[in-house]
Amino acid sequence: MKILVPADVPNDMSSVYEEHYKKVTHDSGRLLLFAGDQKIEHLNDDFYGEGIPKDDADPEHLFKIASKANIGVFAAQLGLVTRYGKDYPDIPYLIKLNSKTHLVKTAQRDPLSKQLMGVSQVVEVKKNSGINIVAVGFTIYYGSEFEHIMMSEAAATIYEAHKNGLLAVIWAYPRGAAVKNEKDSHLIAGAAGATACLGADFVKVNAPKDESGSKAELLKEAVVAAGRTKLVCAGGSSKEPKAFLQELHDQIHIGGASGNATGRNIHQKPLDEAVRFTNAIYAITVEGKTAEEAVKIYEGK
Amino acid sequence: MKILVPADVPNDMSSVYEEHYKKVTHDSGRLLLFAGDQKIEHLNDDFYGEGIPKDDADPEHLFKIASKANIGVFAAQLGLVTRYGKDYPDIPYLIKLNSKTHLVKTAQRDPLSKQLMGVSQVVEVKKNSGINIVAVGFTIYYGSEFEHIMMSEAAATIYEAHKNGLLAVIWAYPRGAAVKNEKDSHLIAGAAGATACLGADFVKVNAPKDESGSKAELLKEAVVAAGRTKLVCAGGSSKEPKAFLQELHDQIHIGGASGNATGRNIHQKPLDEAVRFTNAIYAITVEGKTAEEAVKIYEGK
Amino acid sequence: MKILVPADVPNDMSSVYEEHYKKVTHDSGRLLLFAGDQKIEHLNDDFYGEGIPKDDADPEHLFKIASKANIGVFAAQLGLVTRYGKDYPDIPYLIKLNSKTHLVKTAQRDPLSKQLMGVSQVVEVKKNSGINIVAVGFTIYYGSEFEHIMMSEAAATIYEAHKNGLLAVIWAYPRGAAVKNEKDSHLIAGAAGATACLGADFVKVNAPKDESGSKAELLKEAVVAAGRTKLVCAGGSSKEPKAFLQELHDQIHIGGASGNATGRNIHQKPLDEAVRFTNAIYAITVEGKTAEEAVKIYEGK
Amino acid sequence: MKILVPADVPNDMSSVYEEHYKKVTHDSGRLLLFAGDQKIEHLNDDFYGEGIPKDDADPEHLFKIASKANIGVFAAQLGLVTRYGKDYPDIPYLIKLNSKTHLVKTAQRDPLSKQLMGVSQVVEVKKNSGINIVAVGFTIYYGSEFEHIMMSEAAATIYEAHKNGLLAVIWAYPRGAAVKNEKDSHLIAGAAGATACLGADFVKVNAPKDESGSKAELLKEAVVAAGRTKLVCAGGSSKEPKAFLQELHDQIHIGGASGNATGRNIHQKPLDEAVRFTNAIYAITVEGKTAEEAVKIYEGK
Amino acid sequence: MKILVPADVPNDMSSVYEEHYKKVTHDSGRLLLFAGDQKIEHLNDDFYGEGIPKDDADPEHLFKIASKANIGVFAAQLGLVTRYGKDYPDIPYLIKLNSKTHLVKTAQRDPLSKQLMGVSQVVEVKKNSGINIVAVGFTIYYGSEFEHIMMSEAAATIYEAHKNGLLAVIWAYPRGAAVKNEKDSHLIAGAAGATACLGADFVKVNAPKDESGSKAELLKEAVVAAGRTKLVCAGGSSKEPKAFLQELHDQIHIGGASGNATGRNIHQKPLDEAVRFTNAIYAITVEGKTAEEAVKIYEGK
Repeated sequence: MKILVPADVPNDMSSVYEEHYKKVTHDSGRLLLFAGDQKIEHLNDDFYGEGIPKDDADPEHLFKIASKANIGVFAAQLGLVTRYGKDYPDIPYLIKLNSKTHLVKTAQRDPLSKQLMGVSQVVEVKKNSGINIVAVGFTIYYGSEFEHIMMSEAAATIYEAHKNGLLAVIWAYPRGAAVKNEKDSHLIAGAAGATACLGADFVKVNAPKDESGSKAELLKEAVVAAGRTKLVCAGGSSKEPKAFLQELHDQIHIGGASGNATGRNIHQKPLDEAVRFTNAIYAITVEGKTAEEAVKIYEGK
Repeated sequence: MKILVPADVPNDMSSVYEEHYKKVTHDSGRLLLFAGDQKIEHLNDDFYGEGIPKDDADPEHLFKIASKANIGVFAAQLGLVTRYGKDYPDIPYLIKLNSKTHLVKTAQRDPLSKQLMGVSQVVEVKKNSGINIVAVGFTIYYGSEFEHIMMSEAAATIYEAHKNGLLAVIWAYPRGAAVKNEKDSHLIAGAAGATACLGADFVKVNAPKDESGSKAELLKEAVVAAGRTKLVCAGGSSKEPKAFLQELHDQIHIGGASGNATGRNIHQKPLDEAVRFTNAIYAITVEGKTAEEAVKIYEGK
Repeated sequence: MKILVPADVPNDMSSVYEEHYKKVTHDSGRLLLFAGDQKIEHLNDDFYGEGIPKDDADPEHLFKIASKANIGVFAAQLGLVTRYGKDYPDIPYLIKLNSKTHLVKTAQRDPLSKQLMGVSQVVEVKKNSGINIVAVGFTIYYGSEFEHIMMSEAAATIYEAHKNGLLAVIWAYPRGAAVKNEKDSHLIAGAAGATACLGADFVKVNAPKDESGSKAELLKEAVVAAGRTKLVCAGGSSKEPKAFLQELHDQIHIGGASGNATGRNIHQKPLDEAVRFTNAIYAITVEGKTAEEAVKIYEGK
Repeated sequence: MKILVPADVPNDMSSVYEEHYKKVTHDSGRLLLFAGDQKIEHLNDDFYGEGIPKDDADPEHLFKIASKANIGVFAAQLGLVTRYGKDYPDIPYLIKLNSKTHLVKTAQRDPLSKQLMGVSQVVEVKKNSGINIVAVGFTIYYGSEFEHIMMSEAAATIYEAHKNGLLAVIWAYPRGAAVKNEKDSHLIAGAAGATACLGADFVKVNAPKDESGSKAELLKEAVVAAGRTKLVCAGGSSKEPKAFLQELHDQIHIGGASGNATGRNIHQKPLDEAVRFTNAIYAITVEGKTAEEAVKIYEGK
Repeated sequence: MKILVPADVPNDMSSVYEEHYKKVTHDSGRLLLFAGDQKIEHLNDDFYGEGIPKDDADPEHLFKIASKANIGVFAAQLGLVTRYGKDYPDIPYLIKLNSKTHLVKTAQRDPLSKQLMGVSQVVEVKKNSGINIVAVGFTIYYGSEFEHIMMSEAAATIYEAHKNGLLAVIWAYPRGAAVKNEKDSHLIAGAAGATACLGADFVKVNAPKDESGSKAELLKEAVVAAGRTKLVCAGGSSKEPKAFLQELHDQIHIGGASGNATGRNIHQKPLDEAVRFTNAIYAITVEGKTAEEAVKIYEGK
């Protein structure tokens, strides 16, 4: 696989960047991002309550899955990684640099997710501890009255990440009083294209929806708009596994997505099942398997 | 006791961090935090008025208790510590880095507690004076429209504290127009989990409440959500001592708390009684005594 | 051509500045700026939809045009340039340093476009990659409640650009609740004059309009007000090619403009047609051709 | 007199701090602060108009009084001191670092007084000019929606002042939409206690008032709450001299104040009378004289 | 003439400061400031339109006047000076560091004029280019909800200017929702006094007005309040030349002003007339001529 190294990666960091890129995509160019940043984003709603297995209540559940299953990268905030990372040093980590809680709703105030840490802290921790940090992540709410803050911090994050040979993934969500339909495919394509202009390696978007057409087809506009920035689809709330895997297959093979970012659909399962389901996702994303083959992996057959 | 040193503690500061951790928990892993930061938070309401003994009016009362009683750590703002600390150099201090008054109510404006000092000033004072500073503290009001400011400053505080081998304790309170019930156990668990993602060593929460169930049981969700970040319960307003001690015992042995942060229940007593009551709390928290044994200590028997 | 080097260009960068100036104006003193910054400004609206050829959906379309056609400078955000620039190293690039989406309308909140990157990052990328960056750009919305932020950042951008021998182009648009008529010629002249006071090399304005008089004549006030800062006219939304070319000729020869900044009228065409149309614009702008001659170039005759 | 040197004074600056402390209190531990910062705070209202002698219109009047009378310290903004200080080098100066005008009333917007200068500028001027600067001052409006800004800047100011061996005096005023009664003794005590937590050497408060009890008694709560931070009372608007001196005596001997901060009651008199009145205040504050003895000094007997 | 060097001018810059002071006042202590900063402040309203000669439309008109006429200092923004200054190197320049447009009216939002450049950039340009920069200027709108921003930046500007031996002139205008009468003499005196506290060398105010008394008399309060900071009167909108010159003479000889700051009354004239009128103003301001003598100079007799 030929890696395109962006021009803000210094020449002496090119091989580090390439190595990270190959590693997280397992030379496939496609990314399975296991999203474990919801403990701030959704507080404890995704980890405890009706229908959520007990395993998920403990943050270590995320690290256990990430270390046992096939993944591209595991996304979490730096603080959590500093507590568990030395016990799970081989997981490829993406440090999510900004996060907000979901308490203040858009109806009250447009969303603002401020940077908690800079890339320099991430690099220091990596050097100090040997934890295998390969990427950073940042959320932008396009259409928020505060988009300028997030866009500026995201641009700086991407720049500094590349300077250090790290990959940069942007969570690109249209949201705010000005946004009528967050799932509109044209709007999502706009967010993907804008994120390409900020220099991200991957842009994570929500799967677009409309009233009639298939979802996977709706992704195409965004994939093209993102250009050389690769697009991954967010997994969203928990779904029936087979349907999820088929949807994922379609996103890649019909919509042209370069992977997916899955959180709740993975960790809202007991450990063993979560690992099998992650491997099923991996089989589709990275190994080019069909949805049916993936279902078998999930079922442990 | 095995101390887990987080990955943002530089290798050459590991032993310092471990030493501080052991010291404040007296090798028990549990913390008695004596909270003396209310002179800003509540102005003079907690120190003067009906039912409050005269001793409490003078700030030195706090230092006298902290030096005579068994405690894990004494929390106060840096300015007060610079005035009294050289006369009480052996107290283990936690410097509370942000504080606000209670004058502007949430109904007027969402709460914002800005950093007064940085960790670097704390470290300078420690080095210059030999005052025994072992930790820093920071309050986050999750759900405030300003949570992003506090979360960013808290994350930086934790990072810098660890860099200097100091412990970091976060006061985690859901508060703001968006927060309907600050004592909801699920919400508190969310705040505890979010704080774990910021990398705190200890998270201080208010004891959750509901209409029927016991309070101590309600803590369990938060304790699990906090993972390797240890949870301590705030003492709250003054209560009848025996009931307080029983509640404390339950928080630890039923709820799974790793200690408590008590202020008014200690300092709103004359010196001698305050010391005995602190020792009673310590007996439960650190020495594994029963509530009955603790009551005897309080009664001086 | 005699280049006036502004006094904030250090003496040892004078020749670099002069070289850049000559290069982008092809010794004519007039500038054809090919604007490719709309992927943030207008999201995907300019690149996908009814009447827009499929070529335009992919960001590389812009680079293909810029590399094949005669242009002065190609304007895009740094992130996009870092992805494609190494494959198109000969294009003369202008890095647009601030951008906002069009989601939040003026009726909701006055426009604010914050700096995404500083000149120092641009210079680093240039040095690291050898990409041919010759200029930077910045948008100011005069009359916005946030004009002070954009004016300060723009002034610093111009200063730093000159310090590094780069040219600085300011997009000067009156906009905000306080602005009744964005196309008023007197107001546009004011914006041009204010931009001259910030030290820009070129000021890009929208073509003024009134109810009766010709547009090109209306430019004269702004051209004079801008003094030694040269004025270029924005191309605006797609128009019939012949009318566009005649208008452009008038802007230069009647209105006194020193060029134009054209985006949609170029890239909303299939590649070959886009190149021919760009060359037609170039013929008028730089080579002193008539509108008729230019039309022939466009028609490939 | 034993001086308590706070722990944020570096060891090699201890003797400088002690010297300053002794000097401004004339070894009495009590402070006469001559307040000359109203030219910003109240614009020209305190210096010109009915009942104000002509002498007071010229800013030099303040310097003449400060150089001829017995005072502890003369408070003014740095700019004014840079104009007159070299002609009056022996006056002990306190540089007031923040100030606002009284034009925007609390009913329009909560008060915010931003730092004009930092301690480093003050120290530079002192070193460069030899002007006898011994202290800095800062105002905090507790209860303002902007208290966090003033509290943070004040804490930094105190820290930096001590680092340079300078004293720090905080003007502590509850004010804002949330404050119902600025003169409430309990609230003032709260402000005094909060200021102690910021590490001030002296806290300046307005004299508390209620409907029946004596004012001086009402000070006691605040004096105790301030602990080792010494409390001085603001003089307020001009009063009948004998009543003023008696009140001052009571504030010290009944209320426990450690001095006073007097402005208008001094400078709203012709020079000779102002000097005599200042000396009368000094006699009570520093020399332990009775109100009657002080009246004689004022009357020139 | 004895120059008072303020204490924030470093000793090794004293002679530079003195030289600048003498130069701009031509040893008279009085200043003719030719104001050319309106291209941002008033956009093109002052330079183009009915009753304004064509010469004024081109920014170079300002430089031509400034180079041919007798002036103290010519005020303009840095950007404009970088474009023309090398061709007019002998003009004594004052760089106006902040500016806003007049588009957003006070009724919409209180005025805020942010710093565009710092003194360090000004000094760099001066060193690099040899352009004769002798002073900087800054506007403060006292009574604006944003006065704190302007006061802080102005104080820093004055400090840094003096550090580099430059003079500092403050435009002091009461303005904002809280200001009922911007021309009130007592309020203007307050603004002048406050500006003295910030350390300005000259304060520029609008001429006060009332219903009956003469304007020049109304200046006296402000002149005294400003102390050693010298007061100059703004010229305001264009007036009949003889009346203007008489008013100017009165401002100096009755009101006590130390000069004037004239813009529109100068540049809204054809070049030759503008030069003669400037010389007339100079004759009164610096050379002690009568209004009648000045009229003759204006009339070219």
